[in-house]
Amino acid sequence: MHAPPPPYDSDLIARAARIKLACFDVDGTLTDGRLYFDDAGRESKAFHVLDGQGLVLLRNHGIHVALVTARASLAAEKRAADLGVEACIGVHDKLACVRQIAQRLGIGLDEMAFMGDDLPDLAVMSHAGLAVAPANAHASMLPHVHWRTQMSGGEGAAREFCDLVLSAQGKTEGLMQKALGL
Amino acid sequence: MHAPPPPYDSDLIARAARIKLACFDVDGTLTDGRLYFDDAGRESKAFHVLDGQGLVLLRNHGIHVALVTARASLAAEKRAADLGVEACIGVHDKLACVRQIAQRLGIGLDEMAFMGDDLPDLAVMSHAGLAVAPANAHASMLPHVHWRTQMSGGEGAAREFCDLVLSAQGKTEGLMQKALGL
Amino acid sequence: MHAPPPPYDSDLIARAARIKLACFDVDGTLTDGRLYFDDAGRESKAFHVLDGQGLVLLRNHGIHVALVTARASLAAEKRAADLGVEACIGVHDKLACVRQIAQRLGIGLDEMAFMGDDLPDLAVMSHAGLAVAPANAHASMLPHVHWRTQMSGGEGAAREFCDLVLSAQGKTEGLMQKALGL
Amino acid sequence: MHAPPPPYDSDLIARAARIKLACFDVDGTLTDGRLYFDDAGRESKAFHVLDGQGLVLLRNHGIHVALVTARASLAAEKRAADLGVEACIGVHDKLACVRQIAQRLGIGLDEMAFMGDDLPDLAVMSHAGLAVAPANAHASMLPHVHWRTQMSGGEGAAREFCDLVLSAQGKTEGLMQKALGL
Repeated sequence: MHAPPPPYDSDLIARAARIKLACFDVDGTLTDGRLYFDDAGRESKAFHVLDGQGLVLLRNHGIHVALVTARASLAAEKRAADLGVEACIGVHDKLACVRQIAQRLGIGLDEMAFMGDDLPDLAVMSHAGLAVAPANAHASMLPHVHWRTQMSGGEGAAREFCDLVLSAQGKTEGLMQKALGL
Repeated sequence: MHAPPPPYDSDLIARAARIKLACFDVDGTLTDGRLYFDDAGRESKAFHVLDGQGLVLLRNHGIHVALVTARASLAAEKRAADLGVEACIGVHDKLACVRQIAQRLGIGLDEMAFMGDDLPDLAVMSHAGLAVAPANAHASMLPHVHWRTQMSGGEGAAREFCDLVLSAQGKTEGLMQKALGL
Repeated sequence: MHAPPPPYDSDLIARAARIKLACFDVDGTLTDGRLYFDDAGRESKAFHVLDGQGLVLLRNHGIHVALVTARASLAAEKRAADLGVEACIGVHDKLACVRQIAQRLGIGLDEMAFMGDDLPDLAVMSHAGLAVAPANAHASMLPHVHWRTQMSGGEGAAREFCDLVLSAQGKTEGLMQKALGL
Repeated sequence: MHAPPPPYDSDLIARAARIKLACFDVDGTLTDGRLYFDDAGRESKAFHVLDGQGLVLLRNHGIHVALVTARASLAAEKRAADLGVEACIGVHDKLACVRQIAQRLGIGLDEMAFMGDDLPDLAVMSHAGLAVAPANAHASMLPHVHWRTQMSGGEGAAREFCDLVLSAQGKTEGLMQKALGL
């Protein structure tokens, strides 16, 4: 089953209720970390449909969404365009990148969430109002996050994060009514 | 091991015995939800051979089969053609789409089964005679389905559903005899 | 860990000791059953390196190896060529196909092993001296096989089968010595 | 969760502390062993981003890194170039290949580590100062390795190995400080 139901603890809900900007690392967070290479040098990766649905739901509820990845990846750019969210590709300083987005939006970093799985995400996550790691994150991340999802990256972990934010912001009931066509 | 043997409960058998139209969401139901993107912008997804065999068995026993997906996907269209089943691709209102098929076939929605895994499937599933979710479905689906398979989408969940329908309609024994060449 | 060590039971060893022809279904047996489709209509599947090594070891010890699949698949043909084994692609009657190979080799079907995972393999498996299913095989296969591997198709199940045959024919110790360069 | 924290046993730490050359088999060790074939004869495989990060960390700390594979694979060559490490592709005698690298670097084989998963790795591993197998390695490897990772090949097993070496060489604390931007 994807994504356990609440309860979330009260600190987590307070953090998630403030989020106006949600940033996601790509490889290992929105994917399972696999980088496919073929004989012609072409590279692929796999995103998950449950995560895509979650990112679109965030966007539809007025939360700005950005993919922030160090790797130069046309696949990530394509997926971001597909979902109508911002793509920051080939980023060497993720903290600087996210600070710029926050300034542009006129919000503080306490209103920013970052989901990541490995050392290159650590600096930006240590400044985030909400720092989340997927189940498969590198063990060194765990002391530095507010929450760890039950799912692994690329299997729906980002959707769990989206569900948390939507729940903390009181959107869940309305979403279900709409999905049922009521 | 794929697919547990029966027993199924009696309400489930009664529902499955009536099915003349079997509809399947694609991403997360007939696939594991992964959407592969390569650097050239090409998209792929993976169907499962056990599911394909199940859909063909339904079709061979006179049940109309349709893939119903919101995503514009040539891969899904190709797979449907491969199996000789109907493809409804890029569908925004799944309930309206399925109603049209049912009208064309001259059957009621109580004779229609729908298998899906996420919010966009919920409205149509709430009208289906038999609503089934794969093991990996989003948790919010569970109160709204008649059955949840033991397998996840893309790993044989749809075959489990087909086996239920074939069993409820008394086809299992004949199938085994034929497979053994008896 | 791949492949448990013996003990195998004595009937299984007796059957495996006689094998001169080893036949493998492809989808779900030498692969995990996933059929990848891209937007251009191209199809892919994934074989496993442990299985490939096993098939080559069988061949090197004088056992004839054949892939026998109903699906027309250039990928399977390519993999067979890669390993130097026979490919029977797009086969509608697997029993007839295997009978022909056995006749050509001048052996009986009791000297033939077949590994398969679903109904289209059942007739030929019911005539095989040794019938083996991977862990993920369809449940209906189980009453009809002599052995079920611990691994699933595409994850090393075929190698487990090869290890059984090599062990039953007394080749394991020599293989290890050679691998260690002794 | 990726990679358990220490404790490692003292013999393992002593071995890892000496390593100046780290060699990796590719298929089944840096990948999950899957070889994807498409209808046009193109071959692909999947590397893991956690492993890539680990190999780069080793390289940045002055350890020479090489991929050593029997299979002629442009994908492996591409991945090695991507990470800035040495690629030995299409190698029939892995021990001879690694001996040459060690001689070129002016080090002994007790300063060389090799990570591999199957029989073709066994000879070189039996000469390595540190021989490591991923969780999914063929069972016959286990009596011949100093350590087996908790993760499987292609899912972060190589990163676990890198973490061991970095820890044994006293680099972990500095890495974390740098990652946190301190």
